[in-house]
Amino acid sequence: MRVHPDCFPCFFRQAVIAFRLSKKDESRFEAVIKGIMPELQKADLSKSPAHATTFMHRRIREILEADPFKKIKSDYNRLAMEVCDSLSGVLQSSPDPLFTAARLAIAGNIIDFGIFTSIDIDATVEKALGGPIACDDYDAFRKAVDKSAGILYLVDNAGEIAFDRTLIEVLKKMGKDVTVAVKGSPVLNDATIEDARETGITEICRVVDNGSDCIGTILDMTSAGFREIYENAELVISKGQGNFETLMDEKKNIFFLLQSKCEVVSRELGLPVKSMLLKRAENGE
Amino acid sequence: MRVHPDCFPCFFRQAVIAFRLSKKDESRFEAVIKGIMPELQKADLSKSPAHATTFMHRRIREILEADPFKKIKSDYNRLAMEVCDSLSGVLQSSPDPLFTAARLAIAGNIIDFGIFTSIDIDATVEKALGGPIACDDYDAFRKAVDKSAGILYLVDNAGEIAFDRTLIEVLKKMGKDVTVAVKGSPVLNDATIEDARETGITEICRVVDNGSDCIGTILDMTSAGFREIYENAELVISKGQGNFETLMDEKKNIFFLLQSKCEVVSRELGLPVKSMLLKRAENGE
Repeated sequence: MRVHPDCFPCFFRQAVIAFRLSKKDESRFEAVIKGIMPELQKADLSKSPAHATTFMHRRIREILEADPFKKIKSDYNRLAMEVCDSLSGVLQSSPDPLFTAARLAIAGNIIDFGIFTSIDIDATVEKALGGPIACDDYDAFRKAVDKSAGILYLVDNAGEIAFDRTLIEVLKKMGKDVTVAVKGSPVLNDATIEDARETGITEICRVVDNGSDCIGTILDMTSAGFREIYENAELVISKGQGNFETLMDEKKNIFFLLQSKCEVVSRELGLPVKSMLLKRAENGE
Repeated sequence: MRVHPDCFPCFFRQAVIAFRLSKKDESRFEAVIKGIMPELQKADLSKSPAHATTFMHRRIREILEADPFKKIKSDYNRLAMEVCDSLSGVLQSSPDPLFTAARLAIAGNIIDFGIFTSIDIDATVEKALGGPIACDDYDAFRKAVDKSAGILYLVDNAGEIAFDRTLIEVLKKMGKDVTVAVKGSPVLNDATIEDARETGITEICRVVDNGSDCIGTILDMTSAGFREIYENAELVISKGQGNFETLMDEKKNIFFLLQSKCEVVSRELGLPVKSMLLKRAENGE
């Protein structure tokens, strides 16, 4: 999907959020805001919004000489693990643990920058477990999981990955060989190897980094090692909007688990904002 | 007031609105969005947001070779005149027509770009007339009007000026010599001489243009003729946020009639968003 006019106010909102989280003195804001504009002027608007913001966030980190999201990511990991612990009973009593864990993984995608409270997540978990979701290819997902020995799991945000861990545990119990891919270096609140360690994912499966600091998965900017794993994967589970934006047109057996958080992506999907999706790639093979 | 970080997403939202109203083909959006960034990079953030957006909107008009707000301004004038006609009874039955007309003029400031419906304005008029407003220097305003023979009235938006006409008529009945100042050329949905003509204001008082296409009133960018009128004015009635941003620190007998429409201005005022104000200039002489 290409950049939409409405993406631009949002790009600048993201820059303001990043600046605020950095806790740097207000006097440094001008350098940030004026520093990102040349990056956005160079942006290829025929590519995804994730492309444009990848370069923007890289520039923000350079100007601030810091990763603005470092602290909030650890906070989110801790909070989300507590929530997931409190939900273990839900999973144990489920007649279909794969279904329940997939729904919880979609619920976890609510954890994005902004304020995360246990109240938000409680309501989101209730919504995910309590009724139909906007797009639900679960039957196809179940069949794809059953058929696949090896699964590549592309995680999205810190915090959220505690919920992914729950789904990964279910997949492992089903005998699947799961590889989790995290970002190669910090970008936004996306999970890196540190977050996988903090949430114990490194203890339950193989974790690789994709060699990239891109939002989503921009394949030609990932490492050769990651691309090999991706190309050989029988099934890909892709979390979040960034991965959806950048992989939606892939001819690959991908299932997208996400919440559509912005108007532009929601319009692209023909769904209301805040919709929950378990969606098979349309060109999926 | 200076530019705040939160202004930037809003600047780009304004650019998207202007582009949409121009009805130009989507393919021209890239030229607009990439064309305004050098203007915003040059912006002096120690000056008001109105300064920065003045140059931005100038560039948008150049790139689109058109005034995107031309049609909507005429539509707003027509709609607002209908609403004001329907409110004539309210004014006639008022024990204090100056009070009622001032409140209606503040209500009219709700008319800004975006969708204007008669429902919005009905609710706003009810709010303005029905109870206390957030900042109410009416007693001082009444005294200032009583004491002044000549009044300079700085209007804000097209449409809104139909409401200003009501207040101007009351001032004229009180024997005041009212001069209305409009923008020298189109910017946003701000009123120009055409709007003053369309709403019949040119028939009831002297209308001058300020020689400028600036948002608000950036004095050193107005014409010498306007500045002379401004300097000689005993009392200035200033409508809207743009004029407030650019004149708030003036040592002048100014009363600001406005609604605080954005978070940045509302924070500056220490009031909730959508507050209504009849506010004396703090450095007023």
